[in-house]
Amino acid sequence: MIELRKDPISSRWVIINDSRDFQFDVNDTSCDDNISMCPFCVGNESFIPNPIACYDKNGNRISVSDENWTVKVIPNNKPILAIEGSVLRKAEGIYDKMKGVGAHEILIETQKHNDKNVYKNTENFIANIFAVQDRINDLKNDLRLEYILVFKNHGKNAGETISHPHFQLVALPIIPKSVKDEMNVSKKYYDFKERCLFCDIIDQEINSKLRIVTETNSFIAFVPFASRFPFETWILPKEHLDDFRILKDKFKIEELAEISASVIRRLYKALGENISYNLMIHSYPLKENKIDYYHWHIEIVPKITKFNGFDLGSGMYVNPTIPEESAKFLREAE
Amino acid sequence: MIELRKDPISSRWVIINDSRDFQFDVNDTSCDDNISMCPFCVGNESFIPNPIACYDKNGNRISVSDENWTVKVIPNNKPILAIEGSVLRKAEGIYDKMKGVGAHEILIETQKHNDKNVYKNTENFIANIFAVQDRINDLKNDLRLEYILVFKNHGKNAGETISHPHFQLVALPIIPKSVKDEMNVSKKYYDFKERCLFCDIIDQEINSKLRIVTETNSFIAFVPFASRFPFETWILPKEHLDDFRILKDKFKIEELAEISASVIRRLYKALGENISYNLMIHSYPLKENKIDYYHWHIEIVPKITKFNGFDLGSGMYVNPTIPEESAKFLREAE
Repeated sequence: MIELRKDPISSRWVIINDSRDFQFDVNDTSCDDNISMCPFCVGNESFIPNPIACYDKNGNRISVSDENWTVKVIPNNKPILAIEGSVLRKAEGIYDKMKGVGAHEILIETQKHNDKNVYKNTENFIANIFAVQDRINDLKNDLRLEYILVFKNHGKNAGETISHPHFQLVALPIIPKSVKDEMNVSKKYYDFKERCLFCDIIDQEINSKLRIVTETNSFIAFVPFASRFPFETWILPKEHLDDFRILKDKFKIEELAEISASVIRRLYKALGENISYNLMIHSYPLKENKIDYYHWHIEIVPKITKFNGFDLGSGMYVNPTIPEESAKFLREAE
Repeated sequence: MIELRKDPISSRWVIINDSRDFQFDVNDTSCDDNISMCPFCVGNESFIPNPIACYDKNGNRISVSDENWTVKVIPNNKPILAIEGSVLRKAEGIYDKMKGVGAHEILIETQKHNDKNVYKNTENFIANIFAVQDRINDLKNDLRLEYILVFKNHGKNAGETISHPHFQLVALPIIPKSVKDEMNVSKKYYDFKERCLFCDIIDQEINSKLRIVTETNSFIAFVPFASRFPFETWILPKEHLDDFRILKDKFKIEELAEISASVIRRLYKALGENISYNLMIHSYPLKENKIDYYHWHIEIVPKITKFNGFDLGSGMYVNPTIPEESAKFLREAE
């Protein structure tokens, strides 16, 4: 199959072409950092800044000095943005710039350094989801901030530098380009159809079943019609929800943890224990009120292909797998 | 320095932050493919499809059976798009798709397999520029095509699979997202200012001198204000020119070859002989008439950083080098 498909959410055309020789690059193990020096391991707290918050296995906040934490949040000691200062937007001739103000936090997901099961394990996801929500709620009070991106780099190919399982959270003084693109397109769709684009996609995916990986009562995981990468999988709430934070119902959070862990288990099973992947949460901007056209979602992207000049120069992607076949493979992988 | 800078051409914010530990990944040698099996080497023509065109050292078209070629163009035998068929745009429910129609050609830049000098050598660039222009002129007659992207993947990290020096040309039935983004933003700027955004940028760069790498009478090479990557360098004609093909003056083509080779030599000198990089030519779409707001340019991007979940989730980049310092380094590297 050689087909061009348009991703309705980003308006990006993607080339789906499974007719070329293609070697998946799946033998990328995690960083082999020295456990005795791991800054996220218990006993090495002197390497890192004081924690911001700790959570127990149910995601309840506990004292930062409590040793029985399940999730511990610390500031990144080499942050990509600095927490101090004001934004100060300025011109430099025709250019625009501002101070690099924001927050960069690490959510250590488990006490165990080599706990590969943490990703496959529903219980651990629950605590982490509550922790992420709690951090967003806290940072939302900082009026300099416009957007919070939560993501994970797992494996060297995905940009991991410390192999102890962790999420990262970056709070930005702007809305990042990817999210702005998604918002612009889904707003146009809403203006035209008076319906949420994401809700329409979910409907079509449920009806066709072609690209579904797995679903629960409240969530669906599917391989996008115009996936950029082999085995790319998105998770969305079936109900229209713009904001990740307002998912409060304990049962639904358990369901989200369950479906997330299930997707990760399937990726491991399909692609091997050494895969690298990124996981990103896209929710709506901090200062927006409830909006009808945006729908939060999780994007999980195995890193088994390399960026080249075509991807970079075109902003498109060449996906060497057919999304329906990737979905079938993952569907049958558990 | 921790600063957010907005790239005026893509409207993308980039984080410039040189305060983090950062290891450049420059020890990525070229693919060590087997020379006796190299499909681009003389003597191995049976491995590849018949050539489309050949050019001598002055960039003049010669017979495809002439053994004294400097540049040889062949169809990619595993193309990302297929040359046969009609585009056939169709819906699939709410999704959009079309046949994967287009062209994918390889421009073999030299007869020598391991000719690293080909990149540093003005003469060779001249023949290749003429060859690229000639191929675009030929493909422009195919009314199914909307855009032609010319690029190079040099080194494994940049997506190279065969180390024999070559450019690639992909002709697309759509305008790719990166170029569309550039056109949308520069069109808005033109509507507001009645001046070309790129021309204004060139003016400011010439006046400030801060980010210039090198210049000639007709061309400028500079590190963009909001560079996505360390040592990213753009080359633009100083005069307003929307279309790469209409650069016809032999002296100007020599100048372009000279400045391109000079930038590549500087990158090798600054980052070592084993760097990987991508080079992309952005020109205006095939079916547009002369436009006042778009300005062709070459983007050269060393691949010494890794994409991670932040880049992918935000569509932004974190550049661990200060563009003015990268520019100074490259300026002094020859």
